[in-house]
Amino acid sequence: MIDPEVIRKSNQARLEEHQSDLSGLKRQLRRAGHNVDAVLDELAAFDVALPSWALGTGGTRFGRFPGPGEPANIGEKLEDAAVVHQLTGSTPRISLHIPWDEPDDPAQLRHQAAEFGLSFDAVNSNTFQDQPGQQHSYKFGSLCHSDAQVRRQAIRHHEHVIRVGQELGSTAITVWLADGSNFPGQSSLRKSFDRTLASLHDVYAQLPADWQLLIEHKPFEPAFYATVVQDWGSSLMLAQALGPRASCLVDLGHHLPNTNVEQVVARLITAGRLGGFHFNDSSYGDDDLTAGSIRPYQLFLIFNELVDARREFGTRFRPVCMIDQSHNLKDPIEALVMTVDNLQQAYANALLVDRPALEHYQTDNDVIMAEHQLQRAFQTDVRPLVREARRRKSGALHPLATFREAGYRQSAASTRRSASYLPPQSL
Amino acid sequence: MIDPEVIRKSNQARLEEHQSDLSGLKRQLRRAGHNVDAVLDELAAFDVALPSWALGTGGTRFGRFPGPGEPANIGEKLEDAAVVHQLTGSTPRISLHIPWDEPDDPAQLRHQAAEFGLSFDAVNSNTFQDQPGQQHSYKFGSLCHSDAQVRRQAIRHHEHVIRVGQELGSTAITVWLADGSNFPGQSSLRKSFDRTLASLHDVYAQLPADWQLLIEHKPFEPAFYATVVQDWGSSLMLAQALGPRASCLVDLGHHLPNTNVEQVVARLITAGRLGGFHFNDSSYGDDDLTAGSIRPYQLFLIFNELVDARREFGTRFRPVCMIDQSHNLKDPIEALVMTVDNLQQAYANALLVDRPALEHYQTDNDVIMAEHQLQRAFQTDVRPLVREARRRKSGALHPLATFREAGYRQSAASTRRSASYLPPQSL
Amino acid sequence: MIDPEVIRKSNQARLEEHQSDLSGLKRQLRRAGHNVDAVLDELAAFDVALPSWALGTGGTRFGRFPGPGEPANIGEKLEDAAVVHQLTGSTPRISLHIPWDEPDDPAQLRHQAAEFGLSFDAVNSNTFQDQPGQQHSYKFGSLCHSDAQVRRQAIRHHEHVIRVGQELGSTAITVWLADGSNFPGQSSLRKSFDRTLASLHDVYAQLPADWQLLIEHKPFEPAFYATVVQDWGSSLMLAQALGPRASCLVDLGHHLPNTNVEQVVARLITAGRLGGFHFNDSSYGDDDLTAGSIRPYQLFLIFNELVDARREFGTRFRPVCMIDQSHNLKDPIEALVMTVDNLQQAYANALLVDRPALEHYQTDNDVIMAEHQLQRAFQTDVRPLVREARRRKSGALHPLATFREAGYRQSAASTRRSASYLPPQSL
Amino acid sequence: MIDPEVIRKSNQARLEEHQSDLSGLKRQLRRAGHNVDAVLDELAAFDVALPSWALGTGGTRFGRFPGPGEPANIGEKLEDAAVVHQLTGSTPRISLHIPWDEPDDPAQLRHQAAEFGLSFDAVNSNTFQDQPGQQHSYKFGSLCHSDAQVRRQAIRHHEHVIRVGQELGSTAITVWLADGSNFPGQSSLRKSFDRTLASLHDVYAQLPADWQLLIEHKPFEPAFYATVVQDWGSSLMLAQALGPRASCLVDLGHHLPNTNVEQVVARLITAGRLGGFHFNDSSYGDDDLTAGSIRPYQLFLIFNELVDARREFGTRFRPVCMIDQSHNLKDPIEALVMTVDNLQQAYANALLVDRPALEHYQTDNDVIMAEHQLQRAFQTDVRPLVREARRRKSGALHPLATFREAGYRQSAASTRRSASYLPPQSL
Repeated sequence: MIDPEVIRKSNQARLEEHQSDLSGLKRQLRRAGHNVDAVLDELAAFDVALPSWALGTGGTRFGRFPGPGEPANIGEKLEDAAVVHQLTGSTPRISLHIPWDEPDDPAQLRHQAAEFGLSFDAVNSNTFQDQPGQQHSYKFGSLCHSDAQVRRQAIRHHEHVIRVGQELGSTAITVWLADGSNFPGQSSLRKSFDRTLASLHDVYAQLPADWQLLIEHKPFEPAFYATVVQDWGSSLMLAQALGPRASCLVDLGHHLPNTNVEQVVARLITAGRLGGFHFNDSSYGDDDLTAGSIRPYQLFLIFNELVDARREFGTRFRPVCMIDQSHNLKDPIEALVMTVDNLQQAYANALLVDRPALEHYQTDNDVIMAEHQLQRAFQTDVRPLVREARRRKSGALHPLATFREAGYRQSAASTRRSASYLPPQSL
Repeated sequence: MIDPEVIRKSNQARLEEHQSDLSGLKRQLRRAGHNVDAVLDELAAFDVALPSWALGTGGTRFGRFPGPGEPANIGEKLEDAAVVHQLTGSTPRISLHIPWDEPDDPAQLRHQAAEFGLSFDAVNSNTFQDQPGQQHSYKFGSLCHSDAQVRRQAIRHHEHVIRVGQELGSTAITVWLADGSNFPGQSSLRKSFDRTLASLHDVYAQLPADWQLLIEHKPFEPAFYATVVQDWGSSLMLAQALGPRASCLVDLGHHLPNTNVEQVVARLITAGRLGGFHFNDSSYGDDDLTAGSIRPYQLFLIFNELVDARREFGTRFRPVCMIDQSHNLKDPIEALVMTVDNLQQAYANALLVDRPALEHYQTDNDVIMAEHQLQRAFQTDVRPLVREARRRKSGALHPLATFREAGYRQSAASTRRSASYLPPQSL
Repeated sequence: MIDPEVIRKSNQARLEEHQSDLSGLKRQLRRAGHNVDAVLDELAAFDVALPSWALGTGGTRFGRFPGPGEPANIGEKLEDAAVVHQLTGSTPRISLHIPWDEPDDPAQLRHQAAEFGLSFDAVNSNTFQDQPGQQHSYKFGSLCHSDAQVRRQAIRHHEHVIRVGQELGSTAITVWLADGSNFPGQSSLRKSFDRTLASLHDVYAQLPADWQLLIEHKPFEPAFYATVVQDWGSSLMLAQALGPRASCLVDLGHHLPNTNVEQVVARLITAGRLGGFHFNDSSYGDDDLTAGSIRPYQLFLIFNELVDARREFGTRFRPVCMIDQSHNLKDPIEALVMTVDNLQQAYANALLVDRPALEHYQTDNDVIMAEHQLQRAFQTDVRPLVREARRRKSGALHPLATFREAGYRQSAASTRRSASYLPPQSL
Repeated sequence: MIDPEVIRKSNQARLEEHQSDLSGLKRQLRRAGHNVDAVLDELAAFDVALPSWALGTGGTRFGRFPGPGEPANIGEKLEDAAVVHQLTGSTPRISLHIPWDEPDDPAQLRHQAAEFGLSFDAVNSNTFQDQPGQQHSYKFGSLCHSDAQVRRQAIRHHEHVIRVGQELGSTAITVWLADGSNFPGQSSLRKSFDRTLASLHDVYAQLPADWQLLIEHKPFEPAFYATVVQDWGSSLMLAQALGPRASCLVDLGHHLPNTNVEQVVARLITAGRLGGFHFNDSSYGDDDLTAGSIRPYQLFLIFNELVDARREFGTRFRPVCMIDQSHNLKDPIEALVMTVDNLQQAYANALLVDRPALEHYQTDNDVIMAEHQLQRAFQTDVRPLVREARRRKSGALHPLATFREAGYRQSAASTRRSASYLPPQSL
């Protein structure tokens, strides 16, 4: 981890500037009637889980360009995750991918993580690749497969992932299936769905009582004609058929062009099945870019729905928040630090929406003024709030700068063995 | 209507050629094991409803270019619909749009239609335009409106449409709502949905026992940010909340780019809520082009799902089939005749799929051969079958040619008053 | 127009607050090394033309919902445009649509406008609708038509528009063509393009020496299969074939899903043919929504390209800036005021990009820091700068609030005759 | 290769059936005025190049599922290509990918290919992956790179590929660049384009006099924000700047959603820069699916443009035809055989368009009848023609069936070493 003294000094050098910015913003917000301390409390309470697979350099089918000092195993990933948490104060949990980051000794890994102040969020299954020694191939699907033996193998894998998760202290499993077809006729659109549901019933039957099963939809890739769980509608059908502990996970990049994602979020809230998020951003498809890097206003509108639901349902409304990105060009730690910052800004902006005013104008169909409520919240420069929330959690005021000042990556590059043999790992 | 003698002569001139083509095709199909007579029977049993609004020239927001001899009222539309039915033998029903084609005397219109051999399919409501004398405006929505008075007005309109439909002999109402918003913040994504459902409950409560309520989704236009019933998922949520007589209607053009529409169809079949279709085609959005004119293979794949479901569920599976097109450049009668031909070809191709072989290859994951089953059915030139089915129903072998030979439009142009004052009417 | 005293008082009441916000922002910007006065000068120099057609309520093909007090003629539109300019100080020009707003006496209209402090920007032709008394129909195209007589009529219309524009003091004509086809085969994709080019040659030959011809591309609507000038590539081919006074106009909403519009802008700059803009925003197609309302970050990135080109080419780089929106739900004046504000914010954010730093990081391929340069500029709350620029031009600090305080629309509603007979007018 | 006797017997068993189908079709076509022999001659003259990389199992970033008996080196790929050519009679050339299939001894490989009756089509460069021992990384681009040393390395690679191609007897190089950026700001949109052009100038300077340089555009993947050569417009700008031997290559799957690809083809024909094709099909992006498997009507419309241009320009119009697919689930040989069949069907359908009639109806704006000319050609079952063309070139009447009867893959599986170590190779 980074020497706390580096962070302290880095913050110290920027403190005066920060306090000046913050007090200016507070004045402005108080003038508009905001309870800034309440906003700061809510903002500081926000956290998001890191995906174990996003700590290494990702890639596309065309290539992968690893960087120096990448983590080569789950232990080194834990270290890097701890650094992200140290800098941001907001990533206390890791979402593990099995088998990519399967621990030899889960209990020991849990202990090791705890020493870093980390614990484990939802575990992720993988039936979209064949693993060495695997009896049946997932080439033509897993939970949807026409062959009961393949389905059974995939079900057992999910049961295994749950068991590992239990030892890690997780309470949820995220199921993203590559199952689908590349050509019309390849598989029955209805039967493959029916078989997927039947398989999920078996998985659900093994779900511990305090666990959630999160179903993640995606319209295409790697299936290029029809994916079995292609959209939120199919995801919801499955969740409703399974039972109350099944719900839907929204990966922001898993939608067709022009999808109104915040509306998908709203519908799943209405259905009582919004289980959680995989945060990222995209221009074209499942691009797995930094959350907020392409459509920051959309990210804000999504957080606006979340704040709105939280106001209505209170703490019963608690979707799981995870990052799912592929860092092909950026340093993974830097990318994650930037991601957390972007998420917090979107959240802070959403917390500044004057909801009574918004509701008033909506009821009046005063389109201009209703929209204006969102815009003025979005246009507010909330960076001082986010920095302050970070500072309160002992993070860095300017985490990117501090990370570079600390020389962490260079140091890792000199001590870790080359990571260049790693296969591309990305969802 | 067209002088039957014109059709008879037109057919006579082409009969020998037809019979030669047909017997060649029959030989080929029998060789492949098909029961050609059964296929012909199924094909001949297919029919589809005509939309009253598609008998006039449609338009876009940029302009409308009416043609000579357009129908100026519901009476003249009946005449034109009768001609389409005469030529195709497959369009015995009309889907009426209220108030565009609201009859002064529904019982009398029903009688008049019966004399043409026509009856009435699903009636359509309209709350996306304000009508002269209307108390409240739908500018900001109808069933979703924030003001209970506007919602009540829209609910009463639906009840009125149902009553008119009852007098016409209809047994279904199609509800397409323009309700939505153009800007983030304009309306609450969740509350507008809740209000829509509450309003639909009131409509559903007035639904006669033998009626169906069909909910039609659409992602955008005229709402350009968020449409309340934006996709099949929202449509299904509404239908399930309403009750067993509510179901989902799929307009083929009402989907986001790259949507796998046949999969949407398959999911609604699985959910038991596929209520019916608005057939058309599109390149970009709700283009309302001739069905099968842009993506004929997709149309075939949709019919493939329908035939598959029919084989499984028998006559219990009976989605309502309607055309919904806007004929901006084509003569509406000719466009409808071509549409029916395209639909029948897609259906005929789908009837020729060797389903046991398809299932065999799907089970074996023999991707190439499974796909090949669909391709060989699609590549078959089924035009002789479609002509023969038409001939058996006293239609025209070559309906476009016959229509032109009959000089119907020219005759209409000389007797009907100019239709140029008609507003654009298109869904 | 609005009583200047209303504006003065409205500003007075908000002045102290504004000055406090502005001085806070200035401190922050100076700390970061910005020359705030230079930024303010550039920002204050920005202006944008109003489209005459956007001062009335727009509509879709499904309906139009006019509001009270709409302008019923070009004279009333001038009044409303003057109000927008009064409030924003940034809309001194009007882009006129012929024949929608064809003046009886152009010289007199020019004089009338001058009294409001207004002049005329690019004039717009219209060959996508038939006008009463027109000899040939544009149903099947205009400049692309297969019939030379129709093309000649369309060419003459363009010559007429240029002549009217000359009398108005315009120096550019914008050509947007609906020409295209709805179905494969309807027209030859190559010949229709060749004919369009030949027709444009004739128009170009009539172009006054100090005029520009702006070609506007659009992928679809009203043509639903193939539009002749479908993208920037076709637009560029035409401009290059015509000559140095022809260039390409980018309407932000005229692109296929997922198009990187700022890159289109960059390519046209490289080609030396970026003629100008129609500003708006869109979620799905040519939605004509308020600029910056859906994808504000994209708008910023477009302005970033403009600032970048301006830094390189100086005042030689001077694309024409116009708004093209359809105000279906918002009060047109309010919508335009909000639009100008959004454009100015995007411009102000772009002016704050630290270009030497950006270039440094780009050269170094420091992805994170390069992106960060854009993000920090975008995240800056530039509203005080925009207000100050407005104030310096005698506009309103809070123009929406001031507009409402002035009661202008209510007053117009009581004095203007009903505008409800107006046809939908929207590009 | 396959024992010719297997093919002979396989054909013999199906000959009678084929001849019956063919003579029926001939009768039908002659009745419609077609010169069937001329059509067959043109059809038989069609050939298409195989991509070396498509003979192995492809994959996505999520996984690759190799099949038994895959080729492990360029020698085995030659064998498999020879089998495709043997069965189809239409794939006499191979398009080689450097360095994936870089031959140790190009002259020897050329000789070896000649023994199979094969020669070499366009060679393909690769600067989207780093190769072992490479001095500079392409992580941040190649020909567009900000560092002149990286650009020079990439230019030298292209020169090397040209030299290898010369030894192989190729006369064209296809340049597809992954160059681009994942985030706004990462690189200058204009400068990266300028540098790409400058680099291509250097490559072009080394182009042998009888060679062509083909530039391939692609909107996204692996660059997820802005690809340098993102569309045909950018590709055309580059080709025009380079010189007469540079032209544009259209990969059918490299377009944004809803792109009218046949129109892109038409524009490039008009510009005189349509260099060639990478045939495939797609539902969502660069899916690299079997050509004609998703949108067969579009494939027909593309061939319709090609036949139209050929009629106008004669043999001067000669775009290079290559396949570019990724066979993730299908046996590569079977997939290629099916692809060739689909291409030939599309071509045969296009050859059956009655062009004088089409032109007549287009000139008359008889939309229905013009469209009908294309539809009737497309609806014709041309499989007997394609089989006959294949038979005349000593191919198999039913190549898929014959391939399976020959047991080629099983035999390869027993003799070739496992190919499972192969990295995913797909464009």
